[in-house]
Amino acid sequence: MTKTIAIVSGGMDSVTLLHLLKHKGHEVEALSFDYGQKHRKELDFAWLNCGKLGVKHQIVDLTAITPLISNSALTGSEEVPDGHYTDESMKVTVVPNRNMIMLAVAIGYAENLGFDQVAIGNHAGDHAIYPDCRTEFVEALSEASQLGTYNKIKLATPFTDISKSDIAAVGNEIGVDYRTTWSCYKGGDKHCNTCGTCVERLEALDEAKQIDGKSVIARLTV
Amino acid sequence: MTKTIAIVSGGMDSVTLLHLLKHKGHEVEALSFDYGQKHRKELDFAWLNCGKLGVKHQIVDLTAITPLISNSALTGSEEVPDGHYTDESMKVTVVPNRNMIMLAVAIGYAENLGFDQVAIGNHAGDHAIYPDCRTEFVEALSEASQLGTYNKIKLATPFTDISKSDIAAVGNEIGVDYRTTWSCYKGGDKHCNTCGTCVERLEALDEAKQIDGKSVIARLTV
Repeated sequence: MTKTIAIVSGGMDSVTLLHLLKHKGHEVEALSFDYGQKHRKELDFAWLNCGKLGVKHQIVDLTAITPLISNSALTGSEEVPDGHYTDESMKVTVVPNRNMIMLAVAIGYAENLGFDQVAIGNHAGDHAIYPDCRTEFVEALSEASQLGTYNKIKLATPFTDISKSDIAAVGNEIGVDYRTTWSCYKGGDKHCNTCGTCVERLEALDEAKQIDGKSVIARLTV
Repeated sequence: MTKTIAIVSGGMDSVTLLHLLKHKGHEVEALSFDYGQKHRKELDFAWLNCGKLGVKHQIVDLTAITPLISNSALTGSEEVPDGHYTDESMKVTVVPNRNMIMLAVAIGYAENLGFDQVAIGNHAGDHAIYPDCRTEFVEALSEASQLGTYNKIKLATPFTDISKSDIAAVGNEIGVDYRTTWSCYKGGDKHCNTCGTCVERLEALDEAKQIDGKSVIARLTV
């Protein structure tokens, strides 16, 4: 049985990833990260889904490093803009090297436990403005991880070349309830429905209705 | 002028690295990491050397992740063994994925500041038991870092293929006072002189007397 640490933010992609890993029969533990994001409300949704699936879940407090990576609208004083997720204007939501930081901690934990791999829910729609979501980045980091650990821990990135709509179709197929996921970056009580990630969420949920989740799942390797 | 974040533990290698960067005219900021190591006394020596060189220094509190990487004699309940640094028995001092974790945070900070690179003092003597000190690991991580950041941040690892004795010869050449560095892993008030890293320290300081530091420096690129 493959033993996988899943990085789960509480958003659509990582919650679908968590369900997919269970669906595929992995032994799973989940880590969430508090890096000072305004929308730390997302962490409640990570907890909720882990509880539902019986997955051990820990929230890692990285707020000590928030001042070091503050040059982002998610962690600093700048406002989260409205617009489309792939717009240049959304670059202010990039958190410097966030994925490598979370992955490095998760790889350390996987090595500590004797697990096989670390899974993250980066997807094709992220590639435009988030360099640390791109296929070539996760491949290079997986290489570094295998070289830097005795367990030769790999990264599992099943969504890296599919769209968020495809992910939602996968989730619909395997029983994800997207009402128990959180996307909005603005940190309010409800989804604002106008920031980039809210717009992307609505698009994906709408488009997913036209996609056959079963055939997407058949193409995924985890 | 090259802008470099230096990871400085307070040991011989990283303190020499810090002096070398200043010697080569870099703009430098330093980060030290408290990851729950028993020998956190080393951090005082990082602070001392940064102060002497007028380098901004921050200690990053990563103790929230200590329980996740506790399967090591440096962070857990196991005792630090006596012996030689390269012995199999010293494997218990490996901290799971420690270098990637520290580097990931430092890369994030470099990206946040608009710096060019992150420097770390891994050297050839580490390669035997520390996989995350090996040349192929730091090369793969440098590749991932350049792919994952807008500033295309590189790793600078000038000591990766030289010995600790060579490093000490470099330090002697550029004015490092090794009495203001800390090596011992055991966490006592004085160097124990019997643990692997103490034995290695004494060997290096002794052998360095026979090495021409100038010619070593000429071979280093930072």
